[in-house]
Amino acid sequence: MSVDFTVFKGSKSGEIVEAIGHRDVGPRQALVQITHSGVCGTDQHFRHQGQGLGHEGVGIIKVIGSMVPEISDLKVGDRVGMGWVQKVCLHCKPCLTGQHSKCLNSEQFGTANLDQGSFSTGLAWDVSALFKIPDAIDSPSAGPLMCGGATVWGPLYEHGAKAGDRVGILGIGGLGHLAIQFVNKMGMEAIAFSGTESKKDEAFKLGASEFHATKGVTKFEGIEPIDFFLITTNVLPDLSLYVPVLAPFAKVFPLTTSFDAWPVPIFPLLVYGYSIIGSGGAHPQSMRAMLTFAATHKIRPILEKFPMTKEGITAAMKKLDEGNMRYRAIVEV
Amino acid sequence: MSVDFTVFKGSKSGEIVEAIGHRDVGPRQALVQITHSGVCGTDQHFRHQGQGLGHEGVGIIKVIGSMVPEISDLKVGDRVGMGWVQKVCLHCKPCLTGQHSKCLNSEQFGTANLDQGSFSTGLAWDVSALFKIPDAIDSPSAGPLMCGGATVWGPLYEHGAKAGDRVGILGIGGLGHLAIQFVNKMGMEAIAFSGTESKKDEAFKLGASEFHATKGVTKFEGIEPIDFFLITTNVLPDLSLYVPVLAPFAKVFPLTTSFDAWPVPIFPLLVYGYSIIGSGGAHPQSMRAMLTFAATHKIRPILEKFPMTKEGITAAMKKLDEGNMRYRAIVEV
Repeated sequence: MSVDFTVFKGSKSGEIVEAIGHRDVGPRQALVQITHSGVCGTDQHFRHQGQGLGHEGVGIIKVIGSMVPEISDLKVGDRVGMGWVQKVCLHCKPCLTGQHSKCLNSEQFGTANLDQGSFSTGLAWDVSALFKIPDAIDSPSAGPLMCGGATVWGPLYEHGAKAGDRVGILGIGGLGHLAIQFVNKMGMEAIAFSGTESKKDEAFKLGASEFHATKGVTKFEGIEPIDFFLITTNVLPDLSLYVPVLAPFAKVFPLTTSFDAWPVPIFPLLVYGYSIIGSGGAHPQSMRAMLTFAATHKIRPILEKFPMTKEGITAAMKKLDEGNMRYRAIVEV
Repeated sequence: MSVDFTVFKGSKSGEIVEAIGHRDVGPRQALVQITHSGVCGTDQHFRHQGQGLGHEGVGIIKVIGSMVPEISDLKVGDRVGMGWVQKVCLHCKPCLTGQHSKCLNSEQFGTANLDQGSFSTGLAWDVSALFKIPDAIDSPSAGPLMCGGATVWGPLYEHGAKAGDRVGILGIGGLGHLAIQFVNKMGMEAIAFSGTESKKDEAFKLGASEFHATKGVTKFEGIEPIDFFLITTNVLPDLSLYVPVLAPFAKVFPLTTSFDAWPVPIFPLLVYGYSIIGSGGAHPQSMRAMLTFAATHKIRPILEKFPMTKEGITAAMKKLDEGNMRYRAIVEV
């Protein structure tokens, strides 16, 4: 089966371009009619390439491929969110250990990977990367959980964060405002760091235990050490400023997409056993656990809505780029 | 009880200075008559400070403090190696979880920490950081295991390295030549990287599975990805050169003491889930396991011997500094 969609792409100049996308529905795929898509900072990074943008899609399954009944319990009419497709080459070490998302023989982690294209009216997607949205979560709220939620959940859920741990969260934006909620509801202390005090009240409302303004600070004092550090600012900070705040064996997660190298102070890393850990989302079991947890604990993004049009997407990306989004944009068909 | 020793210190000019050291033997300490001490690259870093140098001491217990029989099975006459003292403040999180070496309330990880002073004829040392040397290991060989051996063992033993894993070892020197032996005997593949081919035969003799010269290489090709990467060169390399060789979720250990920040490429870290992990040795149980393993599997440093005199220490540090040590110096009383 083969279907055409409206899809919104980046372009060399950065202008959002409306186009007709065409996808065949493969045997392991489902055709998803998109209703909503979150807008993520990472989309900005790929805006100047001619690929479909958007990777926080939510919609309704309209058609399933021939093999889907054998490999999945998804069916026509299900409301699903889209994650990263996990390719399976069946012969590299990651694939053989179930870590298909890191398949060495796929191109998915090159530029192509981000070509999910959920800024569209629909697309065909591998069912291994489609996740049923719990009834308690409305579709607009589900969008930002698919990437933003997964990005802050993965480090905590998959790297041993425990009840009572102190989790530093740098930046209160699309990721940070979700991180504060998750950390709080997971039984940990959310220690929020933000440039100015402008988001202080909001941070406490979201569940922060502490708030620290960072602008002009050259040395933090009197902060009890943090065990995890989630960096969600759109530019990575000077890590040396935060080293004195880290507990021994602290795990630091730079969650911001960056094409630059980041200077990491090595002596304190050795002496205190810190780790700098790369985490690019959440694996499928982790995704399901995150959605269930968000449903149960009423974790929801704070949204600004835009229409799924060239103008709507352009306006949303502009506001995000200017740092004025409170806190996550959703584009709506 | 109170004893005087000959001790060799650094000085502002870098000249090695012979002095009389004085230590009281505390209730939890033992008086160790030093017979040997390894010479580590880290000693170079503290040479211009007026502190006792040397931290790979081996010797014989001559006196034990009043509480030692209650807290330890060490006794007079035991042959021991010296590790880092683990202070116990009894109220910070690391101390309360048994990670005393990371005590937040001790000064030990400042400069003072490296003031072990095993370039001496003896010293008093906390028994929690004294380790019985297995009979199979001669005293000169034991010295370099206390820091060099622990430094390469810790990352593997404490961070989930498994049989069959591919362990990259960059640099074949004091640490690297021990790492190759440990990795090989632990049932993993030792993938040696060295500037030129001059140490290639030695690397294979030590147990390397593969050897790759790095000088002039701008891109490695055809190397099967490595799961662990131990960096033992005296200067940290350009990590971007090695990123294409890392397997997904690879663990990278910069083991070299460095006071600089190290540029870490962030995009591949996120995409492939790499970690940069700080490891500054091995905890006490890990130290004991390392010594037993080295005894059983005949892992020994290749030594150059120097006398425990001002001239001997100066000559050893000069040869190490010039990169000509094959592979670890031991100074002998």
